[in-house]
Amino acid sequence: MPSRPDADDPRLGDVSEGRILHAILSRTSSASHALIGPGDDAAVVATPSGSVVATTDTLVHGPDFRLAWSSGYDLGWKAAAVNLADVAAMGARPTALLVALAVPADLRLSFVERLADGFRDACDALAPGCAVVGGDLTVSDVLTVAVTALGDLEGRAPVTRSGARPGDVVAVAGELGHAAHGLAVLFGRFRDGDVPVAVDPAMLAAGESAAVAAQLRPSPPIGLGAVAASAGASAMMDVSDGLALDARRMAAASEVTIALDRETLGDDPERAIAGGEDHALLATFPADALPPGFRAIGRVLPRGEEDLLCDGSPVEVSGWDPYRDWDSVSG
Amino acid sequence: MPSRPDADDPRLGDVSEGRILHAILSRTSSASHALIGPGDDAAVVATPSGSVVATTDTLVHGPDFRLAWSSGYDLGWKAAAVNLADVAAMGARPTALLVALAVPADLRLSFVERLADGFRDACDALAPGCAVVGGDLTVSDVLTVAVTALGDLEGRAPVTRSGARPGDVVAVAGELGHAAHGLAVLFGRFRDGDVPVAVDPAMLAAGESAAVAAQLRPSPPIGLGAVAASAGASAMMDVSDGLALDARRMAAASEVTIALDRETLGDDPERAIAGGEDHALLATFPADALPPGFRAIGRVLPRGEEDLLCDGSPVEVSGWDPYRDWDSVSG
Repeated sequence: MPSRPDADDPRLGDVSEGRILHAILSRTSSASHALIGPGDDAAVVATPSGSVVATTDTLVHGPDFRLAWSSGYDLGWKAAAVNLADVAAMGARPTALLVALAVPADLRLSFVERLADGFRDACDALAPGCAVVGGDLTVSDVLTVAVTALGDLEGRAPVTRSGARPGDVVAVAGELGHAAHGLAVLFGRFRDGDVPVAVDPAMLAAGESAAVAAQLRPSPPIGLGAVAASAGASAMMDVSDGLALDARRMAAASEVTIALDRETLGDDPERAIAGGEDHALLATFPADALPPGFRAIGRVLPRGEEDLLCDGSPVEVSGWDPYRDWDSVSG
Repeated sequence: MPSRPDADDPRLGDVSEGRILHAILSRTSSASHALIGPGDDAAVVATPSGSVVATTDTLVHGPDFRLAWSSGYDLGWKAAAVNLADVAAMGARPTALLVALAVPADLRLSFVERLADGFRDACDALAPGCAVVGGDLTVSDVLTVAVTALGDLEGRAPVTRSGARPGDVVAVAGELGHAAHGLAVLFGRFRDGDVPVAVDPAMLAAGESAAVAAQLRPSPPIGLGAVAASAGASAMMDVSDGLALDARRMAAASEVTIALDRETLGDDPERAIAGGEDHALLATFPADALPPGFRAIGRVLPRGEEDLLCDGSPVEVSGWDPYRDWDSVSG
């Protein structure tokens, strides 16, 4: 909760667009790749290797976050992190973010300031040299944060989902299932009936605190995307919708079968397989090329009847499809 | 109105994300600049001149468009056009769009299909070779279209707002005031009380039809952005918020005074000065360098007391600030 008196923390509907933009831009660091930063019709970002990697991902209040659980800072951090992960998953280094904010007029200015702090800190922590270079501000009844991330391949070939080959090792960098564990804690413990309520840290065991943090402020291993590409990764993607769903997508795109070893999937293999939103990097490598930071979780087989096996058996695929799973009442 | 029976035109909440994405992507042409297009974690777009121009702009149902007036096709077209104009205003050629859609679950699939058609046709008409290379789909109670446009400078220096010099000619390419005229027609004639109702073309005079089209499907002169840069434009921006407001911004950024000649501003100079959303290109050139497609509307003076003059007198600045002007009832 903001400690500032309300007069110092106006609602966005009572201040000019210029003041809001200034509050955001004064908080974002300068991107080392920006030739022209915010303030003109468009930004200009250096792309020394002759191409740009570009991706967009949106967080919408309701299906993607709840303000009782996520602070402005959390929201900025997560919106940055999920987009940085998509750039990393191509083998690129993130260079710049563009942020399109649609905000309710009764939101406080301090919320947007903390959001900008979250963007800055996530970039500094996960992808140094990357920063917000442009954006857009509109008014909407539904708080919506649409981010575009750009990246540079630095001379490497892009790593797609479709290059996995039989004999490759399947590996992952980053956590699996932690963010889903955190979401289960939030849904199970911090609701009054169906209404989300603020998290009381005193009610969380140590592992639960880490899981809630993984859900609200994920820290995917962004720098390892470039490492994987340099090491010769044959395929890569970020695990946003759960290992089962995303590994199956990779297997289908590569026309192979992916075989996972359950014992490599940690204390709770079911959660590691089904849980999304950690944005770990899933990659395949020639058997002798696994780089530091990645751990083997299986191998690539010639295309069989199933896209995905775990310990030799078919995997019941589950994952997050916002249209199928979302329920505006239960959240 | 869709003529398809409902069973063939399901609500988005009843179909999978994959089917919706397929419906969109099957309608967008392939971008000649895309090295990797939709379907992976990120797109890869060629940037032969070593930098990328990037901008983002969002249309939100309510403040930015009304579904009684804008079809899905109109909305896709306009969302493309306003972003292409920002790329053109830097002197660049648009290469790619990323589209982040947040859509209500009860919207029909056909609406999204027409939206994709609008994106495609706007790119083909205004910026050949540019196409949708990626996107994101989320569910939201408020239909929101956030677009990022990328462009290539093809070796030209970017043209900012801050380079206007005393002695330069002030010029514009494209219409001024037409979109505002169209909005006035919509607000004045096609509402039942405060509620927007569908446009009846039979109720429109010829000039009004063109004005409504300029508001709903603007066609800014995208190709002239590169022409202006090649001709030596010293400053450029697109006129999104009205000539008065945007020329004043250019004057402030360039530390000059801009002097307009009223007689160059057409039949309705007041509307040309105040009206926004045409996305004409406003540029300054050395006096002997005005390229075809641009018409002179004034000159650049050394910095005086006023940012902006018209026939020697100060201009009452008006323009569109969504936070100040929007009213959820009348608006």
